[in-house]
Amino acid sequence: MHKTQAWLADGRECTFYDRRPMQRDIPADRRSLPARPAAAELRFDVRSGRWVVIAGHRQGRSFRPGAAECPLCPSRGSAATEIPAADYEVVVFDNRFPALTMAGLDPPDLDAFADPFGPAATGSVPAPAYGRCEIVCFSPDHDASFADLKPDQARLILDVWRDRTEILHATPGIEQVFCFENRGPEIGVTQPHPHGQIYAFPFVTPRTAATIAQAAEYRRRTGRNLYDDALAADRAATDRVIVADESWTAFVPYAAQWPYEVHLYPNRRHRDLSSLDEVELDSLATIYLDLLQRFDRLFDTPAPYVAAWHQAPAGPAGRDFAMHLELFTNRRTSTTLKHLAGTEIGMAVFSNDVVPEQAAERLREVAV
Amino acid sequence: MHKTQAWLADGRECTFYDRRPMQRDIPADRRSLPARPAAAELRFDVRSGRWVVIAGHRQGRSFRPGAAECPLCPSRGSAATEIPAADYEVVVFDNRFPALTMAGLDPPDLDAFADPFGPAATGSVPAPAYGRCEIVCFSPDHDASFADLKPDQARLILDVWRDRTEILHATPGIEQVFCFENRGPEIGVTQPHPHGQIYAFPFVTPRTAATIAQAAEYRRRTGRNLYDDALAADRAATDRVIVADESWTAFVPYAAQWPYEVHLYPNRRHRDLSSLDEVELDSLATIYLDLLQRFDRLFDTPAPYVAAWHQAPAGPAGRDFAMHLELFTNRRTSTTLKHLAGTEIGMAVFSNDVVPEQAAERLREVAV
Repeated sequence: MHKTQAWLADGRECTFYDRRPMQRDIPADRRSLPARPAAAELRFDVRSGRWVVIAGHRQGRSFRPGAAECPLCPSRGSAATEIPAADYEVVVFDNRFPALTMAGLDPPDLDAFADPFGPAATGSVPAPAYGRCEIVCFSPDHDASFADLKPDQARLILDVWRDRTEILHATPGIEQVFCFENRGPEIGVTQPHPHGQIYAFPFVTPRTAATIAQAAEYRRRTGRNLYDDALAADRAATDRVIVADESWTAFVPYAAQWPYEVHLYPNRRHRDLSSLDEVELDSLATIYLDLLQRFDRLFDTPAPYVAAWHQAPAGPAGRDFAMHLELFTNRRTSTTLKHLAGTEIGMAVFSNDVVPEQAAERLREVAV
Repeated sequence: MHKTQAWLADGRECTFYDRRPMQRDIPADRRSLPARPAAAELRFDVRSGRWVVIAGHRQGRSFRPGAAECPLCPSRGSAATEIPAADYEVVVFDNRFPALTMAGLDPPDLDAFADPFGPAATGSVPAPAYGRCEIVCFSPDHDASFADLKPDQARLILDVWRDRTEILHATPGIEQVFCFENRGPEIGVTQPHPHGQIYAFPFVTPRTAATIAQAAEYRRRTGRNLYDDALAADRAATDRVIVADESWTAFVPYAAQWPYEVHLYPNRRHRDLSSLDEVELDSLATIYLDLLQRFDRLFDTPAPYVAAWHQAPAGPAGRDFAMHLELFTNRRTSTTLKHLAGTEIGMAVFSNDVVPEQAAERLREVAV
C-alpha cells in the first residue's frame, strides 16, 4: 500500500492510496471553495446520558447529484470534483460538511460538558463537535458498487481502513474509530458514487459502551471473554452460519434486529482491523465481497445496506472487545422496508419479522 | 368514561370506550377467522444485553389497504371489520398479528432466559414473547387524524390510555406499558385509519432503563431528582419552549435527535398518566392537539410523526421517572427525510441538521 498526500482548496486533507508504490503528481485543487464551516456542536442529553451532534450547516448539503456533477468522481476535463486528479484507486478526504471536525480545535474536555452540574445542564454551553468525518471513495467508477470490486481492490480498502484506524486512534482526543458504508437511497444515501465513511468520535459511543459493559460483567462472573464464548455458540449454531473458513465466520445473529443481518467475526479475537494478519486480510476481502454479493441477490434489485465495522475504543476500556462487521438491510421484502418507529426508537425494542434461521437459509441459497 | 366489553371471533378482547354511560349492544363477530398465531419469540442478545422479538407470523400482515377494506372502520353494511359494531367512539382491541401476546401463556421467568449461562446463550431456547399489543382506534372516521379531533374526543383517548395503563400494570408479568402513535407512511404505518398502539412489555425497555440509570446516579450524587432539575433548566431556556401553561411545558430538547422534536412534561412530576388530575388532563388534551396541529403545518403536507408516551415501569425501579411525551418527525425538509443509518444504528450517535432553537422558533410560528 502506498500513500500520496494532497490538500484541497479549503485546506482539507486528501490522501491517495495505491496498491503499489507509484509517483502521483496531484494537480493543485484550483476550485474557489467557501471557508470550511464552523464546527458543529456536541450537546449532552442529561436524561439519556448521550451526546448528540447539532450540525446546522449540514442542512444545505447536496442531495443525489447526477453523474455529471458527482463530487466523488475523478476530476476529468472541465469537471473539478473533490478529488483533484484524473484517476485514483482509493482516496480518503475530509467531509466538506462534517458532523465532527478537528479544524482549528483542540480536543475538548468532554467530561466537563457531560457533567449534569456543568454548563450542559443549563443548555447554554455546547462542546465543539471535535472529531473527524472522512469520505472513502472505493473506486473511480461512478457506477460500481463495492460488491463489483476485484478482491485486490477490496483488500486495498481494508488496508485503507486499517491505516485510518491507526492514524485516528493515535490522534489526541479520539476515543473510537468507526468505518462504515451506507448503500442505497432507501437507507438515506445522498451520493450514489461508491464510497464509505469514517467517523472518529471523541467519546465511546453508546452502542459500544453497552456491549463493553456486558463483557465486563461477564468477565467478572466467569473470568472469561463474552465474545469468545458467544462466537463459539454462534459457530455451533450451523443453521445460522452463512459462510466460514479457517479465519472467519459469518452468521445471522440469534437475536437479529433486521430482516437480513449478518455478523462477521474473525475466529481469532482482534480489537480492531489493524492487528489482522495477511492470511486473515486476504480471506476477509474474499468473504466480504461474497457477503455483499449475496445482499445484491436477495431481492430482484440490490438491497440497500449498512456495513458497520465495530472496533474497540482506543483506550483500555476495549480490552475485551472483539472487532467485527455488522451488515444488514432494512428491506423486508422486494417491496417493503423495515421502518423504525415507536417501539424501536421510543423504547429501543426491535421486532423482526424474518426468523434468523430462515434468513440464514436464504442467504446461503443466494451464493454466487 | 364508560366501557363495554366484547370479544372477537378468534377470542381477542375488544373494549368500547364512550365518554358517557350508554347501552351498547355489540353484535357478535361472525367472521371466520383463522386461529390466533402462536406466540412470537423473545430472544436475548448476550452481547448487547437486549431482547429482540422474532415474529415470523407478522411477515404476511396486510399492507395499507384501501378504505373499503379498512379493518379499523366500524362494521357497516356487508363490511365485517375488526370492530363488530356500526359505530364507536374509541375502541381498543388486541392486535391480530401481535409481537407480544398473553394468549395461552403464563408469564415467563425472563431472567432465566437472559442469563448468559442459560439456554439463550446457546441460541436454542427462546422465551415466549409474552406481553400484549393493542390497537387503539382514535375515531370511527377513516379520514380523520388525531390533530382533527375535538378536545373531548382527545380527552377520551387520554382516559383510555390511563385505563389501559392501569389494567396492564396490574397484569402479572408486565413491567412497562407504552402508548404511542406512528402516523404517516414515511414512518412505516401500514394502516391509514387514525389509530395508535399500546405495547405491554415483560421487561423494562433499554431506553427506559438507560434514563433510570442516569436518574439513579444523579440522585446518588445530589439527593435530587434528575427530571425535576432538567425540566427546570428546559423551562428556563425560553428559546426552546413551544407552549406552556400552569400544568404543562412543551419544548424542543437541548440535544434533540430529530429535525423537529418536542417533549411535553407535566410541571408536577408523575410516574405515568394514571395519576394526572382533571385540570392536568383537560389541559393536556388541548396542548396535545395544539402540538399535533403544529406538526401538520410545519411543511406543505402533514408531517409523519411518532408520538411516544414514556411512562415509569410498574415496579419500584421507576420511582424517580417522570412521565412525558416525546413527539418527533423524521422529515427534515418538505422533500427530505432524516434516515437512520451507520452512525445512528451502528453506534447510537445521532446527528441533527436542524438547530433546536431554530426548530422551536419554527414550531412557535406555525401556531394555529
